[in-house]
Amino acid sequence: MIVDCALYRDGARDAPVDDLSEALAAARRDGAGFVWIGLHEPTEDELGRVADELGLHPLAVEDAVKAHQRPKVEDYEGSLFVVLKTALYQEQASAISIGEVMLFVGDRFVVTVRHGASKALHDVRARLESEPELLACGPSAVLYAVADRVVDDYTEVAAEIARDIDEVEEAVFSQSAGNDARQIYHLKREVIGFRRGVRPLVEPMQRLAAGRAPHVHERMRPFLRDVADHVARVVDQVDQFDDLLTSVLNANLAQVSVRQNADMRRISAWVAIVAVPTMIAGIYGMNFDHMPELRWRYGYPLALAVMALICAGLYRAFKRSGWL
Amino acid sequence: MIVDCALYRDGARDAPVDDLSEALAAARRDGAGFVWIGLHEPTEDELGRVADELGLHPLAVEDAVKAHQRPKVEDYEGSLFVVLKTALYQEQASAISIGEVMLFVGDRFVVTVRHGASKALHDVRARLESEPELLACGPSAVLYAVADRVVDDYTEVAAEIARDIDEVEEAVFSQSAGNDARQIYHLKREVIGFRRGVRPLVEPMQRLAAGRAPHVHERMRPFLRDVADHVARVVDQVDQFDDLLTSVLNANLAQVSVRQNADMRRISAWVAIVAVPTMIAGIYGMNFDHMPELRWRYGYPLALAVMALICAGLYRAFKRSGWL
Amino acid sequence: MIVDCALYRDGARDAPVDDLSEALAAARRDGAGFVWIGLHEPTEDELGRVADELGLHPLAVEDAVKAHQRPKVEDYEGSLFVVLKTALYQEQASAISIGEVMLFVGDRFVVTVRHGASKALHDVRARLESEPELLACGPSAVLYAVADRVVDDYTEVAAEIARDIDEVEEAVFSQSAGNDARQIYHLKREVIGFRRGVRPLVEPMQRLAAGRAPHVHERMRPFLRDVADHVARVVDQVDQFDDLLTSVLNANLAQVSVRQNADMRRISAWVAIVAVPTMIAGIYGMNFDHMPELRWRYGYPLALAVMALICAGLYRAFKRSGWL
Amino acid sequence: MIVDCALYRDGARDAPVDDLSEALAAARRDGAGFVWIGLHEPTEDELGRVADELGLHPLAVEDAVKAHQRPKVEDYEGSLFVVLKTALYQEQASAISIGEVMLFVGDRFVVTVRHGASKALHDVRARLESEPELLACGPSAVLYAVADRVVDDYTEVAAEIARDIDEVEEAVFSQSAGNDARQIYHLKREVIGFRRGVRPLVEPMQRLAAGRAPHVHERMRPFLRDVADHVARVVDQVDQFDDLLTSVLNANLAQVSVRQNADMRRISAWVAIVAVPTMIAGIYGMNFDHMPELRWRYGYPLALAVMALICAGLYRAFKRSGWL
Amino acid sequence: MIVDCALYRDGARDAPVDDLSEALAAARRDGAGFVWIGLHEPTEDELGRVADELGLHPLAVEDAVKAHQRPKVEDYEGSLFVVLKTALYQEQASAISIGEVMLFVGDRFVVTVRHGASKALHDVRARLESEPELLACGPSAVLYAVADRVVDDYTEVAAEIARDIDEVEEAVFSQSAGNDARQIYHLKREVIGFRRGVRPLVEPMQRLAAGRAPHVHERMRPFLRDVADHVARVVDQVDQFDDLLTSVLNANLAQVSVRQNADMRRISAWVAIVAVPTMIAGIYGMNFDHMPELRWRYGYPLALAVMALICAGLYRAFKRSGWL
Repeated sequence: MIVDCALYRDGARDAPVDDLSEALAAARRDGAGFVWIGLHEPTEDELGRVADELGLHPLAVEDAVKAHQRPKVEDYEGSLFVVLKTALYQEQASAISIGEVMLFVGDRFVVTVRHGASKALHDVRARLESEPELLACGPSAVLYAVADRVVDDYTEVAAEIARDIDEVEEAVFSQSAGNDARQIYHLKREVIGFRRGVRPLVEPMQRLAAGRAPHVHERMRPFLRDVADHVARVVDQVDQFDDLLTSVLNANLAQVSVRQNADMRRISAWVAIVAVPTMIAGIYGMNFDHMPELRWRYGYPLALAVMALICAGLYRAFKRSGWL
Repeated sequence: MIVDCALYRDGARDAPVDDLSEALAAARRDGAGFVWIGLHEPTEDELGRVADELGLHPLAVEDAVKAHQRPKVEDYEGSLFVVLKTALYQEQASAISIGEVMLFVGDRFVVTVRHGASKALHDVRARLESEPELLACGPSAVLYAVADRVVDDYTEVAAEIARDIDEVEEAVFSQSAGNDARQIYHLKREVIGFRRGVRPLVEPMQRLAAGRAPHVHERMRPFLRDVADHVARVVDQVDQFDDLLTSVLNANLAQVSVRQNADMRRISAWVAIVAVPTMIAGIYGMNFDHMPELRWRYGYPLALAVMALICAGLYRAFKRSGWL
Repeated sequence: MIVDCALYRDGARDAPVDDLSEALAAARRDGAGFVWIGLHEPTEDELGRVADELGLHPLAVEDAVKAHQRPKVEDYEGSLFVVLKTALYQEQASAISIGEVMLFVGDRFVVTVRHGASKALHDVRARLESEPELLACGPSAVLYAVADRVVDDYTEVAAEIARDIDEVEEAVFSQSAGNDARQIYHLKREVIGFRRGVRPLVEPMQRLAAGRAPHVHERMRPFLRDVADHVARVVDQVDQFDDLLTSVLNANLAQVSVRQNADMRRISAWVAIVAVPTMIAGIYGMNFDHMPELRWRYGYPLALAVMALICAGLYRAFKRSGWL
Repeated sequence: MIVDCALYRDGARDAPVDDLSEALAAARRDGAGFVWIGLHEPTEDELGRVADELGLHPLAVEDAVKAHQRPKVEDYEGSLFVVLKTALYQEQASAISIGEVMLFVGDRFVVTVRHGASKALHDVRARLESEPELLACGPSAVLYAVADRVVDDYTEVAAEIARDIDEVEEAVFSQSAGNDARQIYHLKREVIGFRRGVRPLVEPMQRLAAGRAPHVHERMRPFLRDVADHVARVVDQVDQFDDLLTSVLNANLAQVSVRQNADMRRISAWVAIVAVPTMIAGIYGMNFDHMPELRWRYGYPLALAVMALICAGLYRAFKRSGWL
Repeated sequence: MIVDCALYRDGARDAPVDDLSEALAAARRDGAGFVWIGLHEPTEDELGRVADELGLHPLAVEDAVKAHQRPKVEDYEGSLFVVLKTALYQEQASAISIGEVMLFVGDRFVVTVRHGASKALHDVRARLESEPELLACGPSAVLYAVADRVVDDYTEVAAEIARDIDEVEEAVFSQSAGNDARQIYHLKREVIGFRRGVRPLVEPMQRLAAGRAPHVHERMRPFLRDVADHVARVVDQVDQFDDLLTSVLNANLAQVSVRQNADMRRISAWVAIVAVPTMIAGIYGMNFDHMPELRWRYGYPLALAVMALICAGLYRAFKRSGWL
């Protein structure tokens, strides 16, 4: 689906575009404007028509239709093909949904293609239209703005993961019984998936920032370096998360083990409390002819009292030593 | 066994080849065609005759007969020797069987050699014959088509492994008792073996894509880059699988431990339920002369009732706290 | 907040600066002096005015206001932007609080910006003013002095962590019961966070030391190399800490397990001590007609004595074998 | 001990060598032959005399006498010094014994020195003498043939380790009780030791294959690349073994834990089976005046029958649930 | 403290040096001799005077006084500053004590500074004085001789660690009860500390050996390469130790677990042996009117005999199955 298509000249939006070829011709004519086409999960057909007009490479077009690509920056003749993974944190499921934004960046055009769980790019367009000096740098300004937005979302996702890890730590080291292996593993899985979407971006982003790619305006380089820097920071964080979760998983094992021991000690204490009166009762159940206590007037209540006393004493002792 | 042997000219299949030397001479004469020879587990003899004709290096020929090579791209004088590992997922055994496809790529010829669990290359040939513009690029188009097919299979295998991991996660974190160490380890083993077949391919594929190898047509480079990219994606995934399985193995230990504790608590609860009436019976089995309860008319049923009540109470308490 | 602002000439502090532009003009005029502006958590506005005057890049300024950057050295036109993470050990919480110091280093100016838990830079200024030969090297001397101070704090923090690890080791391997997983994990977390602040510094510091950055005085290079060396040493130490904590966490699991076994053996010993008299009492509670012992005059005290003897014997045996 | 010493000319063995100097002179004279000296654990003296004649560097000679070197390829003036680790699998001890072969490769000579558990080089010599076209390439052909043999042995050792790992996996996941930590660790140790002998070889072998070393004949390069490739394959395999053994060690922990739980459940089942009749016996041992069952004619056999029934019922229930 | 100070000419020790400046002047005059000054934990003052005379860089001097440096090779104007970590194995504590030797290597002088647990350098001096051809190479010969000695000590320490690991393996897998986590961790800690002293040396040593540092005599390069090689070998070994200790720590967990299970089974066996007679006694303690056995003449001894028999049978059964 074609979401938006506009011709930009001198950093401002021009009249609406009726025909892609004309707009492109106009952009080429004065050599200053460019066309921005926004697509959302386009069919092979839709993207095909755009690709024919702009001369995009069939392999890149195929990738852009099929989605599920690796994050990458590829240099095709006539255009740069950039694949970015978008990340959104799903509050209720504590899950990260991964989507994709692809860009074709040429000299006089830029095509953005969204797939899956990616936010619409309206506000990116709005932001750019409000910053004409950026927009005047041409298609690579759009590349920057989109990448900036995508990476900002990474930062938010990383913050959410950090919060989840705090919660899981709390749970692992709390007194309450329970095994948190499932939650830890779930988080680990999310972190590993997220990292897979982010890490391959580090190197191509730095390449863009260093100006080792065509169609990137000189003035956009520090901006792209800024984005590259944020990606690197997120990767740092995610590696840290991974490390922490491995340690939490190990610590959880010790906690589970300790809690089990607490159970065992509690059980044992009660067994001991029951075993002692049983033993005493057994003794007074013996059939010896000469057992003076059996003849006492208050032998029985006394025996009961002794049993109760010993039980109470044991109970207090266990309570004090933390077994109960 | 020679499976197929054909002369291709201008992107189309020529008349059937009777004699390899003649066909080769024809291909060389107009400098545009090439010969494609397909072999399946050839004997030393079969491959030897082909090699003599084409001037293949003895070491490469030896490798191609013996199989069990590392994935690699080697540049011999006059031809490129490429070894690819094929992977097929065996549904019933949840196992991956690894085979091999080798290619000798020259300027006017290409030889494909299949070993073990690799699918036949008929459809690769069919696909190429239906895309003359690809075939017109010469032997490296065959290299691309075979590699593309092999790597597509990787993607499928990776998807199957992902499904297996989902199942094993389900099993580990389900309530049902059981130890999943065996299945996890089995999967881990498959993943490690698969990675060994795929990872060494990353670097040589990128080398081919970058055009740092002879006999590769200029126009095939983006196609080979596409394949290189898919290999990298599979390696990413496999690394992720490996990570996940290590974590699952650890989490499984906690789960096993927790399930054992549940067993222990269940046992203990029953021991407690039996121990209390035993204690009471012991008390009323004492031989004191003065135990008024013993004389009561309904002493015995009362004692039984007390026992039953306490047992029922304990049972409910354990039930409520989750021990039973 | 502007903390301090001074003009330095020939290694000495000049008259106080009223107006930044004038001071800058003065510094530029003789081409030997420089202006040092110290800021603490400046507002966008405060830093904006300084940035306009000095021609700092808007992206760097944005980073300097927002804080929470990665440690880095970035080369913008006209100035070097350096971000350093400061670390302070919080005695009472055994926690490391991370702050930030940023520097803009130009030819005739240096701007220092502090955020969060970083010590004031008064003594850095004082140290420099007492070493005119350093100060005479210009803005990069300030860069050195600040970095030197920051890295000295790292060394202190590392020493504190080493002490904490010693304590935790002591606790893990001591006889006293307890599970130290929480403390170990807490330390691990601090170490991982600290490393994240320090490690990214290694490479840019070495770059500065090697003179691959503008605005750095030739004579400052060995000094910066010294700092780079200290950073590398701290990173070495932190890696070692990480390694050690992983091992301690594993060893702790064995210790917890062993302590649990000790508990189990203690419980079992007491169960045995109680079970034996119960069994004996059971035997003499049997109702056989012909049990000569029951008729003995001293049968009962004898039976009690036997029970006591066996219990004492068991107690000694368990004591000797370390079960009690 | 000098094992063999021969002069080779034009790919064939010449008349036996009486005097090393003369032979060397002969080899130098026609500039085509070379001398091959084979030594086995030579004394300092023996090797010293050869070294003097050939002008070997004292440091290399010292290394060659002392053995226990790292695998390496060192370029000394006038000769190449190559150290290879040999590996032999000891069937009965499931152990790998590591030996050494050193080579001095010059333009007109090659010296081979064997230490420890390395097979004799007779068959290498025999193989070469039967392939004159190889031998005609000079000393580097000997280097190739020796390295090829050494690396072939690696492949065999790796196959043996793979078999041992299969066995240990079988043992870990079998139903039979037992703790396989010892065997796993033993294998791990062997694998780590083997890797230490093989891995340092990867880089120098590739260097030789790439022709970045003197005294290596142009025509030997593809052969050396073949060897380098096999080394890389073995290293791949060994890394895989290491990975697998780490996972097996973890899985073993779960298996041990599960088997212990099985023991615990079996014990508990028997305790329950014994506890119930004890409780019933206790009840009928109470001394209430009015217990009608006690007066029944068949009270006792009935009680016994009830006990037996309950025991049998419990036994069946436990059997069915897998606790017994 | 200045330990020794001598002027060397043409590979031999000259007349004793009264005055450093004079000696230095003499060394410079003929351009062949050099001065060797040996210091042991010098004060700032002592080293300062030497530094002034030789023109050493203040930063290097500060490092040399303070000690606790990272191993490194730094190139200052006029001299090379080398820091080496020395290692000594303390037999009684099974600990490695780390010391330092620093060297300033100039064209006509060498200064050695010892700190902490490093052996005196007398024998290094003696060795050099006995090998004039080495000494004639100038200051870098001293650098070689010191480094060689330091690295030889590494090799010894590594051998001691290997022995300690053998012992700990023995202990872990022996039948005797016990938890070896403490010893394993202690060893791990030593190994990690040792590695930290050795590993940073690899790269600068290779740099010296490759001749990419000033003041190093051409003829010393192979000697330094030899040292670099030994360092690499020690690092290999230490990495192997680290790997092994991680595995032993894991294996120990399984061993501890298995030993605990053995305890549990032993306890359970005894519980069973005691529980059966208790049950039988309970049965004959029942008060049924009609229990023929109770009336038998030999009922009581028979019952006792049955109990004893069952106990003996159980004991044998448990003994046979390895539970006792």
